Amino acid sequence: MAKVNVYVTLKPELLDAQGKVVQGALENLGYTGIEGVRVGKIVEIEIADAAGNIEGKIDEICRKLLVNPNTEDYRFEIEKG
Amino acid sequence: MAKVNVYVTLKPELLDAQGKVVQGALENLGYTGIEGVRVGKIVEIEIADAAGNIEGKIDEICRKLLVNPNTEDYRFEIEKG
Repeated sequence: MAKVNVYVTLKPELLDAQGKVVQGALENLGYTGIEGVRVGKIVEIEIADAAGNIEGKIDEICRKLLVNPNTEDYRFEIEKG
Repeated sequence: MAKVNVYVTLKPELLDAQGKVVQGALENLGYTGIEGVRVGKIVEIEIADAAGNIEGKIDEICRKLLVNPNTEDYRFEIEKG
């Protein structure tokens, strides 16, 4: 079994409202020196080795289901189980 | 400036409803061999080097704001800018 971590983040040129809220909360809590916060998601997928070309399949899954290519970037890493 | 990536995931013993939905969607799309899917979040924080003990500060930020210790685990990595 392979474990794949997919990291999905908003494109850098887009305003990340959730990140701005976290940044504001940190400033209100008294933290200084926080220059930016952005929030994304991780999708951890466990996939059987018998599934064949895992890298190609995960890339396809990202494009078909997990990622909005208009607004998001993604990268993934495969850990063999 | 340092860039810190914080990874927040639901504790493994808890049911991840969002992950189950993604897993079901993948099965409906015809993907086989998907044994589990879990969804978490990434928080990318840019912090000034002058902020001092970055590791200690980020750990405190996780515990105070970003992570629910009852239901979530976290880890983070610091990239020097």
